[in-house]
Formats: sequence, C-alpha cells, structure tokens
Amino acid sequence: MSEQSILNEVSALSDRLKALRHQVWQANLDLERHNLVTFTWGNVSGIDRESGLIVIKPSGVEYSDLCAENMVVVDLQGQIVEGDLNPSSDTATHLELYRQFPEIGGIVHTHSPQATAWAQAGKAIPALGTTHADYFYGPIECARALSDEEIATDYELNTGKVIVETIGDSDVMASPGILVKEHAPFTWGKDPHQAVHNAVVVEVVAGMALQTLQINASVSAINSALLDKHYLRKHGANAYYGQTKK
Amino acid sequence: MSEQSILNEVSALSDRLKALRHQVWQANLDLERHNLVTFTWGNVSGIDRESGLIVIKPSGVEYSDLCAENMVVVDLQGQIVEGDLNPSSDTATHLELYRQFPEIGGIVHTHSPQATAWAQAGKAIPALGTTHADYFYGPIECARALSDEEIATDYELNTGKVIVETIGDSDVMASPGILVKEHAPFTWGKDPHQAVHNAVVVEVVAGMALQTLQINASVSAINSALLDKHYLRKHGANAYYGQTKK
Amino acid sequence: MSEQSILNEVSALSDRLKALRHQVWQANLDLERHNLVTFTWGNVSGIDRESGLIVIKPSGVEYSDLCAENMVVVDLQGQIVEGDLNPSSDTATHLELYRQFPEIGGIVHTHSPQATAWAQAGKAIPALGTTHADYFYGPIECARALSDEEIATDYELNTGKVIVETIGDSDVMASPGILVKEHAPFTWGKDPHQAVHNAVVVEVVAGMALQTLQINASVSAINSALLDKHYLRKHGANAYYGQTKK
Amino acid sequence: MSEQSILNEVSALSDRLKALRHQVWQANLDLERHNLVTFTWGNVSGIDRESGLIVIKPSGVEYSDLCAENMVVVDLQGQIVEGDLNPSSDTATHLELYRQFPEIGGIVHTHSPQATAWAQAGKAIPALGTTHADYFYGPIECARALSDEEIATDYELNTGKVIVETIGDSDVMASPGILVKEHAPFTWGKDPHQAVHNAVVVEVVAGMALQTLQINASVSAINSALLDKHYLRKHGANAYYGQTKK
Repeated sequence: MSEQSILNEVSALSDRLKALRHQVWQANLDLERHNLVTFTWGNVSGIDRESGLIVIKPSGVEYSDLCAENMVVVDLQGQIVEGDLNPSSDTATHLELYRQFPEIGGIVHTHSPQATAWAQAGKAIPALGTTHADYFYGPIECARALSDEEIATDYELNTGKVIVETIGDSDVMASPGILVKEHAPFTWGKDPHQAVHNAVVVEVVAGMALQTLQINASVSAINSALLDKHYLRKHGANAYYGQTKK
Repeated sequence: MSEQSILNEVSALSDRLKALRHQVWQANLDLERHNLVTFTWGNVSGIDRESGLIVIKPSGVEYSDLCAENMVVVDLQGQIVEGDLNPSSDTATHLELYRQFPEIGGIVHTHSPQATAWAQAGKAIPALGTTHADYFYGPIECARALSDEEIATDYELNTGKVIVETIGDSDVMASPGILVKEHAPFTWGKDPHQAVHNAVVVEVVAGMALQTLQINASVSAINSALLDKHYLRKHGANAYYGQTKK
Repeated sequence: MSEQSILNEVSALSDRLKALRHQVWQANLDLERHNLVTFTWGNVSGIDRESGLIVIKPSGVEYSDLCAENMVVVDLQGQIVEGDLNPSSDTATHLELYRQFPEIGGIVHTHSPQATAWAQAGKAIPALGTTHADYFYGPIECARALSDEEIATDYELNTGKVIVETIGDSDVMASPGILVKEHAPFTWGKDPHQAVHNAVVVEVVAGMALQTLQINASVSAINSALLDKHYLRKHGANAYYGQTKK
Repeated sequence: MSEQSILNEVSALSDRLKALRHQVWQANLDLERHNLVTFTWGNVSGIDRESGLIVIKPSGVEYSDLCAENMVVVDLQGQIVEGDLNPSSDTATHLELYRQFPEIGGIVHTHSPQATAWAQAGKAIPALGTTHADYFYGPIECARALSDEEIATDYELNTGKVIVETIGDSDVMASPGILVKEHAPFTWGKDPHQAVHNAVVVEVVAGMALQTLQINASVSAINSALLDKHYLRKHGANAYYGQTKK
C-alpha cells in the first residue's frame, strides 16, 4: 500500500468519524426532543463498520453540554480511541450488540417511562395493532433477568449477552428493540437516527398496549395476516409506503 | 360550450384546487399542532366535489417538509392528476369513503394514542357524556376485523369498505368517525378542517371514556335525552350554540 | 339624586365594567394557559354585584379571537346589555348560580378531561389528601342527573338548579366547585381569577384521585383533622398560609 | 478574635448567603421547569451549615415573582434573620430535617401528582427497576399518618418528626425522599439542586411503578443484586457512572 493511499484512507476515516460524531450528537439530542429522557438517562451510539470504531455519548453529561466534539470514540473492545471523557456506562452493552449483529449501525438506550414500565413488569409488549406492526414484526420481547453472577461481574457486557440470547436466531432488524427485565428498553437500527426512531416507536406502542389492555383485558395479538401486511408494506422487497422502495 | 367558457372553467378549477391544496396542507399541519401524530403517522385529504378531484398528503413525508405544492392530486379512481410524489398509502381508503358518501368533504387518519387503544381493543367508544354528544350522536363504532383475503388483496380499499359497511344506513355526518379494528381511527367532515376537528374530539373522548370506566366500571351510556339535547344544540335546524345557525 | 351624581354613577359603572371585561377575557385565556380547554369548550364569567351585570364569554368563539371588547354583558335575567355576539350557551347556568349565591363573583365551566371523567362516572371526587383539602372542604360533589323534562325545557337553567340543589345548605365557598353528571365541572370563586384557580385544582385533584384509587382501591377519605388543618391553614380567620391573612 | 477576623467572617457569611439565595431561588424555579408544581404548591430550601442559617421560599408567592432577594433566611429555630415575607408554611418541617440530619444540605417539598397519588394511597413506592435503584437504595417509604394531636399542635414540626421517625436508623442519603401519608413527597440532597433532582426522580418512578403494577399486578421488587449494582454504580466508593468518582 502506497503512502498516498494510506493517507487517503486516514483522511476518509477522519471524514467519516466527523460525520458520525455529528450524527450521534444529534441523535442524542433527538432523545430529548422526543421526550424520551429525563436528565442524562439515555444514550445513543453509532458505528463506522469499515473501521470498527464506535461513537458514543459520554457518561453523565447533561444534554445541553453535549457537542459533536465531546462524543467518545471507542473500538469494538471498548478501548477509548478519541476523547477525554468516560464513555457511557452502558458502552459494553452497545459493543456486544455491534459485535454480534453486523446489520446494526446505531443503538439507543433510554428509560422512557411507558416502555420501562413493561420492562419492570417483565413482560413483552404484545403486537396489538398496526402501529406496532409497521415497525416490529411481532412482540417486543423482554429478556430474562440476569443472574446474580452476571450482575456481579461484567454487568453491562452481560446485559448485552442476554439481549443477544433473547434475539437468538430471529432477524435482529425485524424487531429492532428489546426490553431488559427490571431495567429499560434498548433499540437499534441501520444508523443512529433509525435507532432513535425505533426508541420512539417502542415508547408509543408501550403506552398504547397498556391502554388497550385496560379497555379489553382479554384482547389477543394482532391477526398475523395484518401483521404481515403492515410490516411488509413498510419493509422488504415489496414495500410501498413512502416515496422510495427500501 | 364556447372556448371562453371552457377556459373560464379551467381557471376556476385551478383556483379551487390551489385553495384546497392550501387547506389540506394546513389541515395536515394541524394534526401536529393538536399532538395527534408521531412522525408521519397521519394524513388528511380534501375533495373538490365539482371536479371529483382529491388533494391528499404524500406518503411518508415529514410534516416539516410538507407544503401546498407537494400535496398530491388524485381522481376518485386513484389516478395521480398532479404531483411527483406518491400519495398517502391510505389513499384507497379515503377514496372509498368519498365515493360512497357525497356529504364528506375532508378525511383524516391518525394513530392518536388513546383512540388507537380503543381500536386495538376492538371496542366502540361509548357515548358517556356531553363532550362526546356535542359531536357524535351515539357511540364511535369499531369496524369488524378484515378477513385474511381482504387484507391480502386491496387492503386499503377493503379498509374503506368495512368502514362503509359499519356505517350502513346511518347518517354518516352524525357520527363523523370510526375505529378500524387493530388499526386506528378515521374521521371526516364537511371539509378537511372539520375532519381534523373531529379527529381531536375522538382522541379526547377516547381518553375520557377509559378514565370514566376506570372510575366506575359499571357506568352506562349517556341518557338519550341528554345525548339528543347536546347533539342538537350544536347541529341541526334548531342549533343555538355559537354565533350562527348551522 | 342630582344630575351630577347620576353621571358619576354611570361613569363609575362604566369603569367597573371595563375592568371586569378585561378580567373575564384574561380569565378565559387562562383556561387555555392551564390546558383546561380543547377548542372552545370552556367559559368564564364575572359579575359586578353593584349593578347586577355579568360579563361572559361569547358562544363558540375561538380563544385567539377573544378580546375584552367582544365579551358579552348580560343582566341577571339573561338580557344582553352590551355586545353583538351571543353569550355562552351555558349562560343560564351561570346566572342561576349568581342569583342564588351572592358570595360568588366569578364562574368557570370546562370539560377538562380528568374532572370530566369523574362527572361522566357520576361519582364525587373524594377528598384523599391535602392538595384537595387546601381548597375543598370535603368531596367535590356530583349533582344528580337531570330528568328528561329538565333536559327538554330550560336545560341550562335546570343545570344551574341541580347544582344549587346539590349545594343545599352547605357553604358554597367552602367547596367551590361541582361535577354535573354525564357532563363536566363548574367552579366558582370570589372573582373570575379565583374561579379559574379552582378549575385547575379540580382537574389536578381529579387526576390524583383516580391514580390513588388505582394504587389502593380501598383507600378511605382524608382524616378529618387533617382536612380541617389544611383547609383552615389557607382559609378562615386563622389562616397562616401566604403573606396576608385572608 | 480580632475585629478584622470578625469582619472577615461576616463578609464570608454574607457571600455564602448571597450564593445560597441564588441557588435556592433557581432550585425553586427548577420545580416549575420540571413540571413538578401547580401554582405555588412546592418549596425548596438550602442550609449554610457553618452558620446554621436556612434560605427558603416565601409562602404563597407565585414563581414568576420569586427572586434571590425575596428568599427568606431563618435560623434552625425558625426565627426570621433576613426577609420581609413569611417563609414557606412548611418551614418547620424543613427545619426538623436539617436539625436531625447534618448530611442534608437542601430540601424540596412538592405535590407532584404521581408521587402524591402514592402518598394519598398510603403506600411506599416499591423499587421495581434500575431507574429507581440508580437513586433510591430501596423503597421510597410512606410515613405513618399523624395523630389528631400531632395535627392540632405544631403540625408542620410533627410532619418533620414522622419523617425522622420513618427514616429511623437507616442512611438518610441512601433513600433521599419520603412520602407523607395523605399529603405529598419530601426529598433532600447534599444541596438544593440535588434535592430537586431527587424530587424529579420520585415523580418519575412513582408514575412508572403504577404503570408497572397495572401491567403485572404480581410483580415483585427488583432483585437485590441488581439494586446493589445500580445504586453502587452511581454512589459510594466504587461508583463509575459519570465523569468523576463521587
């Protein structure tokens, strides 16, 4: 590899990371705009798959103090590559998801109240209507509780592992979010923006699902033909919602 | 018909469509102002009855990117007459209602959360008080679920058809909205503005109705004399609410 | 009475009505500021006790179109004294309360959702805590349903009459609000501003009361010693809340 | 002590009180920013431990009329040291907490609706998830009801005493808030700002806890290993959340 081509690659990486810092910063602010966070209770990351570098919110910094420049860059093993601040305390959870699922380009964690209530209740959010089916191809699962050992050592990594375990062999992008029991939701997407979008969806459908059950405690899950219709209307080869095929 | 009179008609139609584009655009923005939509989950249309042309929101475009000019004009068979964007994916539902009910001048679809919860629950919103009775002369019905066949082919058209089926012979303007089971509400009015107004009413009374049942699970529907009084105080020949007879 | 003293009285009345128009207009806007109204679903009035003239919101006019000048002045029999617009359709209810209770200086009617849910449920809002006790010396009662005859003729007047009947011999200012069954709350105060204040209180305590019952269905009313303490801390001869004795 | 050193101490105290007035004023405004108060239903105080002087909100003054200058300074016995206005009617409750717990630097009282509903229900808010565990090391307790005698004489002081009684020998800073039965929450912290922070947390977890129970009535408290993990991740010698060890 010539010196020039190395310089070109470094320059290209620098440009991509700069753009990703901006995206991740904006996506973190979007959590506030969508009323998903109280104080600093949420974080967004994004990954540059070519280099394997992740940009993530620093830990415990107020949203008003965030900027593209104070986002933290870590590698897939969690080593800080750029940045003076500690990365989010949930970084190890994000990294485990990035390592296991190459489709994922952005991850969000919040304590949005309605989704968190389902996580605290230890219940999956059932697919009860088309609002849900437009984004999640089935229930939003609730991961099992961590064991005391999993909590005691490498807690955040193990949180990632129970998410991975819950997803199992299913299509990670077809149900782009999960509840961690007694904790709160994680969502993901092809990029940080879409991960935030899915975090909003989880919060909205969480609230609707509780109200639905309060109106009709014996309601059953959405007809699978309708689930298929709405999910596939927006996703997959024959999608026809919006202006372009996805 | 003289050339001049044709030119005059074309000019008059152009003026009416321009005004309708503006109305429909504003009515779409009103969905956001009234907190009825998340992202792009809602759409408003309006019809020019003289020409049979419908103006409707484009599919999947963010509210901040909407303008009078990018509204889509379609005919009653769904052919695009003006516009470069795809019309709302729910267009066929709107068209079926316009075809069947000449009284309807504007239609709204949202996934407003409280009304959507009733739709997901598969329950009509009962008329429990005067807030409801001021606008809806009886319960806000919930249409039956579509069959798998109705979902598989012409889903959006069939959604319109089950709404029409549910309305049956009753006065479509006396209960200007309906819930589509496992989906969400549709409302209508003499124009797009009134259709939005009714979408707000459905959301508000949906929330009130659930709270009412939580306070008193055995509550019964509003006294029919009071329903009559309030509905007719605002509607019909002897209306006396507001500044002018309607 | 000399010509001069008559002129002086007319001038004083004119000044008082001008001030009252301003107060009533502002109090109507306060309903919006406190999120108590959707569209035009609320009204405030105030009375000039010296002349027996009432200033009230016009019927069905949007809040953004209200101004001091388009408030309507009526006498205690409902005759329009000043104004080109129809007064609120609920005027006869307000007038009945002003006629029966000389202590009342301002009246508010809203369809605020949480209070309306209790009215629709036909249940008094129980006094469950000090928030309630700071303003209402006991439950916020729910009036009985009107008979079909009372609805058919002079409905709004009869609404006032069932409120008066429910208050009975109790101190009208010690529980400055009531729920009208299947309808919504009315509140009052020594002036329009205080009546709005009490409308906010009713809405807040209505929501708290439902949540309280959801947490503990067998909760009982506040200890009467605590009710006394809080009510009398803010009201009556030995009040010590705030900056001045009331 | 030389005249000069006395002058220096007076000057230092004056500077500290000026800073504390500013903090307490801002913390009171933060109650509004975080939607914890309706009207004047809340108050914040802070203490200068060196002098034993407390700065507290004046009673019944609207938030828009507050400023650093009209905060009231009282000593630990409640004597007004600076200020023309009456201090909060709840001052005696604050003072009792400052006297008993030297760790407390700021106190907040609100009637925030969701926390107040738990207080009215007479139930502790159970620790159901990590949102709670990040701040409260166990349930948010509900103090016992005051006796009629405790209400009749020195009510506000006795309110402080039942809070102290409920805390007992436990670590006052490990569960920095409590519910007063049939009344509302009190929270505290090392300074007024942290006390407000904890007031927000109580309101948020109160709402989440009710929703959690509505989803799953038989939910049990958070696994104690997870409670430990989250509380100690943010607090104590080995905290690693945020940018600095606490």
